[in-house]
Amino acid sequence: VEAGDAETAYERVEPLHPADIADLIELTPAEQRPDLVESIGSLIDGEVLSEMNDWVRDELIDALDPRQLAGMAAELDTDDAVAIIEDMEEADQQAVLNALSPDDRAAIVEALSYPEESAGRLMQRELIAVPEHWTVGDVLDYLRGSDELSSDFWEIFVVDPGHRPVGTCQLSWILRTPRIVSMTDVMKREQTLIPVDMDQEEVALRFQKYALISAAVVDSGGRLVGQVTVDDIVHIISEEAGEDILRLSGAGEGDINEPVRLAVRTRLSWLIVNMGTAIIAASVVGLFQSEIAAFALLAVLMPIVSGMGGNAGTQTLAVVVRALATNQITDSNTWWMVLRELRIAAANGTALGAVAGIGSYLIYGNGPLSIVFAAAMVINNLAAGLGGVVVPITLDRLRIDPAVSSAVFVTTLTDVMGFFSFLGLAALSGVAG
Amino acid sequence: VEAGDAETAYERVEPLHPADIADLIELTPAEQRPDLVESIGSLIDGEVLSEMNDWVRDELIDALDPRQLAGMAAELDTDDAVAIIEDMEEADQQAVLNALSPDDRAAIVEALSYPEESAGRLMQRELIAVPEHWTVGDVLDYLRGSDELSSDFWEIFVVDPGHRPVGTCQLSWILRTPRIVSMTDVMKREQTLIPVDMDQEEVALRFQKYALISAAVVDSGGRLVGQVTVDDIVHIISEEAGEDILRLSGAGEGDINEPVRLAVRTRLSWLIVNMGTAIIAASVVGLFQSEIAAFALLAVLMPIVSGMGGNAGTQTLAVVVRALATNQITDSNTWWMVLRELRIAAANGTALGAVAGIGSYLIYGNGPLSIVFAAAMVINNLAAGLGGVVVPITLDRLRIDPAVSSAVFVTTLTDVMGFFSFLGLAALSGVAG
Repeated sequence: VEAGDAETAYERVEPLHPADIADLIELTPAEQRPDLVESIGSLIDGEVLSEMNDWVRDELIDALDPRQLAGMAAELDTDDAVAIIEDMEEADQQAVLNALSPDDRAAIVEALSYPEESAGRLMQRELIAVPEHWTVGDVLDYLRGSDELSSDFWEIFVVDPGHRPVGTCQLSWILRTPRIVSMTDVMKREQTLIPVDMDQEEVALRFQKYALISAAVVDSGGRLVGQVTVDDIVHIISEEAGEDILRLSGAGEGDINEPVRLAVRTRLSWLIVNMGTAIIAASVVGLFQSEIAAFALLAVLMPIVSGMGGNAGTQTLAVVVRALATNQITDSNTWWMVLRELRIAAANGTALGAVAGIGSYLIYGNGPLSIVFAAAMVINNLAAGLGGVVVPITLDRLRIDPAVSSAVFVTTLTDVMGFFSFLGLAALSGVAG
Repeated sequence: VEAGDAETAYERVEPLHPADIADLIELTPAEQRPDLVESIGSLIDGEVLSEMNDWVRDELIDALDPRQLAGMAAELDTDDAVAIIEDMEEADQQAVLNALSPDDRAAIVEALSYPEESAGRLMQRELIAVPEHWTVGDVLDYLRGSDELSSDFWEIFVVDPGHRPVGTCQLSWILRTPRIVSMTDVMKREQTLIPVDMDQEEVALRFQKYALISAAVVDSGGRLVGQVTVDDIVHIISEEAGEDILRLSGAGEGDINEPVRLAVRTRLSWLIVNMGTAIIAASVVGLFQSEIAAFALLAVLMPIVSGMGGNAGTQTLAVVVRALATNQITDSNTWWMVLRELRIAAANGTALGAVAGIGSYLIYGNGPLSIVFAAAMVINNLAAGLGGVVVPITLDRLRIDPAVSSAVFVTTLTDVMGFFSFLGLAALSGVAG
């Protein structure tokens, strides 16, 4: 697209939606980005920045002047401005904040005072709150009368004199109600209030569960301080659900725009941990070197036992990690869940053990070997099922993210149990000669 | 909760949100569900059903009368009613449809005529569409005047005489505009139109990208036939993103309420496929039995080489599957992506190879063995990186879901390459004696 001259590029990009401009910049190879950015210059506004991938944005921010950035941030709702500013380095952050108007600065500084990934960072301060005694007509006059209000709201919050929310009102209800009706008769009293320090993942689960479009954020005194809208939640749900798959494999953030250097660092540290566990598993094999030397077929079959356990363990793990992420596992059904996975593991283990035993007997005609092979398969499947459910639930209780650390425990378990049960039974039974 | 008598249960459940009632039923052990359902009977309405997990709902639906179900379905918007009815068996479906009013029946039959997981199934027919020549005042009078309109809308669609959408208008804009202004001056002309046969995953990506709250669904003639709202999209995003992790591990739907029998069937068929590939990898080991018998240490180190390749391959795979799911990989950056992953693999492979080589030399003091071990580690990491990116992209081009089938190819590749490179180099170099 941007191979030609700058003017053509500008004309082609101009009619695009900010999200599309952000995509275009992301999909442009890193070397060509500066040229593209220069030619479409003024089209890159705050909206484009807030739609952009973190890595690409950082690159772009470094190239921009703090004053320009402040101008962009001022156009945005607080939540989007915070999302851009929170990732910047301290010095850049200060420069941008200084260039903002005092009001905008205060709002952003306050948002930055809440913990990362909390509702306080996520919320926008712009919202419509009206007192309880107003009628629908009062609200209409208020909305039409003041120019300074945001136009980006989906619900109106009704508050008491202490600015505590007492109800919410969808705009469609207001539109369908005569002017004289009191707001307290239109609003819905049951509402989901979001504490300002709630974790964003929890906020997303509430939105999902109650099909919310927007929700009031309250401080520790129950006062309305902001609102969270569903468009921000959509991003979080997609990120959080996608993160689990990346964490489970130790791929870190796993973003394709992450610099290679950082990707190597994250992945390598995970691989080193896994190498440690692989050595533990290998040392189990080391105990049985004389049996293997006497009967090398053991070395052929042993990776099948450990590998199948690993696969079964990963299946259980995926199910349990997903169920934990969606709050489907509670104290009341933990044991039921453990029992469920053990039943599945017993059924699968028996089936695989039978296939393995019969298959190996047909090929090698060695009865005792086949029995040992089948028994090890059953044992390792049970270990996989038990580990796959107990490990993530335990980590979750200890407040450690089960998606990050479960896999390494479970595969170590299935490798060790696979090698130990197969080689150990072989040694005991004298198959190894 | 439901251990006591039925009346207490009813009183406790009554004030709950439908989503909470659905959760309560799901979290109740299967044996106790019938009792709970009986005691809270009439509280289970269409809303509760539509919030419920598929498996639990099916169980409940079997226990209910078609006439009761029809009553519940009639209360719901078409999208929610369709979601309940589409999963039912043919005969039950017919019974419920027959019990519905002709209007509701026609709407649901039409929705069922669209492919599963398409926008047509997802959309609700209830929406507000107004002609271009209306003013804001006309819209307000219309909304206040007719009782039959749905109250559940967030935007108003402006249509031409052929019922083709020409713009959308947020309710907040209408509220902030004087009555005499024409709708065409308030509405936004750029809008995201959803074709009725678009896949729901694609619809979800549009909502995410453009931060939509609702969008018009149009038929092949461009006529407005329904709307999709973001609350349904939130569920889809969460499901689709969560599905990848389950598919990658072969855990099927992976729902904890799926009957054990079905979970066993899905997982076992995946494990059998993996057993086939494990046998292929083991047969590579089989080629080198005499080397292993002569030097059993090879059997100790070989699972480290294959396992590390598997881990590295899974990392790359997770990153690529996520990037494909979010449309971040296009024709223009495929080669860049392959190159990127190869660079990461080369860096990680070199680092791991060095650790493996030096570590094994310190322990066993066997120079040639350590060189073979290190070299095999590098080779297998490169194979993992290449396989991890080429396999899912190729499957995606062939329109096969990369999340489902990539893992089995990649781990087979890393097992085979791990065993072959390590044992082969050992045999060639004469390390095996």
